[in-house]
Amino acid sequence: MKLGEIGEFGLIRRFSPRFLRGLPPGAMGIGDDCAILPWIGSRRLLVTTDMLVEGTHFLRAKISARDLGYKSLAVNLSDIAAMGGRPTAAFLSLGIPGDVDVAWLDSFFAGLQGLARRERVPLLGGDTTRSSGPLVINLAVLGEAKVGRIKLRSGARPGDAIYVTGPLGDSGGGLRIILAGRPRNRDEAALVRSHSRPRAHLAEGAWLAGRAAVMAMMDVSDGIDSDLRRIMERSGCGAAVDLDALPVSGPLRRTALRRGWKVRELAAAGGEDYCLLAAVRKDRAAAVARGFARAFSRPLVRIGTVTRAGDGLRYFSGGERAELARRGFDHFKRG
Amino acid sequence: MKLGEIGEFGLIRRFSPRFLRGLPPGAMGIGDDCAILPWIGSRRLLVTTDMLVEGTHFLRAKISARDLGYKSLAVNLSDIAAMGGRPTAAFLSLGIPGDVDVAWLDSFFAGLQGLARRERVPLLGGDTTRSSGPLVINLAVLGEAKVGRIKLRSGARPGDAIYVTGPLGDSGGGLRIILAGRPRNRDEAALVRSHSRPRAHLAEGAWLAGRAAVMAMMDVSDGIDSDLRRIMERSGCGAAVDLDALPVSGPLRRTALRRGWKVRELAAAGGEDYCLLAAVRKDRAAAVARGFARAFSRPLVRIGTVTRAGDGLRYFSGGERAELARRGFDHFKRG
Repeated sequence: MKLGEIGEFGLIRRFSPRFLRGLPPGAMGIGDDCAILPWIGSRRLLVTTDMLVEGTHFLRAKISARDLGYKSLAVNLSDIAAMGGRPTAAFLSLGIPGDVDVAWLDSFFAGLQGLARRERVPLLGGDTTRSSGPLVINLAVLGEAKVGRIKLRSGARPGDAIYVTGPLGDSGGGLRIILAGRPRNRDEAALVRSHSRPRAHLAEGAWLAGRAAVMAMMDVSDGIDSDLRRIMERSGCGAAVDLDALPVSGPLRRTALRRGWKVRELAAAGGEDYCLLAAVRKDRAAAVARGFARAFSRPLVRIGTVTRAGDGLRYFSGGERAELARRGFDHFKRG
Repeated sequence: MKLGEIGEFGLIRRFSPRFLRGLPPGAMGIGDDCAILPWIGSRRLLVTTDMLVEGTHFLRAKISARDLGYKSLAVNLSDIAAMGGRPTAAFLSLGIPGDVDVAWLDSFFAGLQGLARRERVPLLGGDTTRSSGPLVINLAVLGEAKVGRIKLRSGARPGDAIYVTGPLGDSGGGLRIILAGRPRNRDEAALVRSHSRPRAHLAEGAWLAGRAAVMAMMDVSDGIDSDLRRIMERSGCGAAVDLDALPVSGPLRRTALRRGWKVRELAAAGGEDYCLLAAVRKDRAAAVARGFARAFSRPLVRIGTVTRAGDGLRYFSGGERAELARRGFDHFKRG
């Protein structure tokens, strides 16, 4: 059987039971943004690892070495943010093709290290090796969180309000521009920048982790259409999403108009937003949103409501049921 | 500047200063088999990560999926063993080319999981993605050790006796057989097995870690000719090695005779032995060796003596100075 037939999620379903055996007490394996291990006292160790492969996750001709270094770390920091954690150390493995030169690597490290310094995440080790094919970047990032503040994907309950911490679709729009050529104006440059230099919502994650009313949290890596289904699966619930409520930036709205893109498809399934998706207890939702707005001077945006399991993921627009044309992506199936 | 011009060690020298900034108190970054982080009380967290790239580290046609899964974990466990630690969790990232099927992955996981179960190392997470080129395997392994028992590369002092915990060159011989075709007899099959299913010397590492007289330790991954130089560099010393004392297995000795190999070159620079190399205080060396032999029913083999920095790495044979024809390998230079 070929991988394309079962897809990335089929692969994960097939092999995940292997990851769940022999866990030490207090540990949690795959199924969330990070694994959790016992740490000092009430602290827990968080571990996340991501592999970026040239041709699958990035095109070397389309992203600067500096941005790629930055992004490689940022997407892992986003996983730590999603648990409400603080990153503590990073480990880098690089598989380097023969046509990468030292100047390229200098820039790559400068981009990675710039973010590492800003977020105080020391780069503590790694491995470098030759690759006969694509450039391969693997980051493993450790973090820590207090046991009572860790937010999982599994805590959402029917009635919870669903929020996101930032605009959706900018990164997906940026990718379309990159694949089509070059940005033609400042709006398009802003979208490309969102794709190439995503910001991990570490401060937002830490703030939300401090609110007991936040029942579930994860980062938006594949688009809410895909990621919300993971919360639904882990929490055993459904969701109703108001497509009109998805927060869309000015640059994306204007660019979508000019280029004839369906903006809500991009917002729901563009992927790589790296903001956070959270389910908040209904009776505390308004207070949490107000507190977030005070703390970050921008809104926590409500996009929907957690529903019962049988409901699945339902979209609405103008009060009516609506459908999305495009679904979240699968590395193995779309290749 | 191309990577081939500066080589793997040049690359590490160029970028390692970036890994040494902003370390938390009690932490240690690159330069040893594992990074070290503060953990609970007197315990320390060990972290190691290794990337294996098809075509560079293995040929998919020449190693079974099961052995490759086993070996991917084993080489990381060896780094934990080298610090005197106990492995506690593993994280796997896989970049999978389109021609790898589900049956292959089943076998790969079975090999990895078999070793993980035996050594009680839960596989706690990871990442799977498509690779447009070679199969890429990245393992990150966490471990723990008591602070006073961790053995670094930097503790060797002139006069210390140098030991290895197992025979040398079997794996290098096995690789030659693999590259030349198939094993022709039981001896050759044993060498191939040493290459494909190396054993991490975890019990030996833990035992040596408990001996205060063990001043420095590392695992033999590139061959003692290369690895001993790393201990010398970190400890600021030289070394004198008796080529006649390098422990060589019966299968390797007989195969080398039949195939016309220079056995001591293989023993010194064949690589991937994954036994341990240790420097032991002169006045306690004999007692440590006796204790090791009692504990493991095989000898701790003395191969030389730590000398002063100016001496460099000198080889002797029959009491006279000798030279090695071949040096340890460099992924970037030999490609």
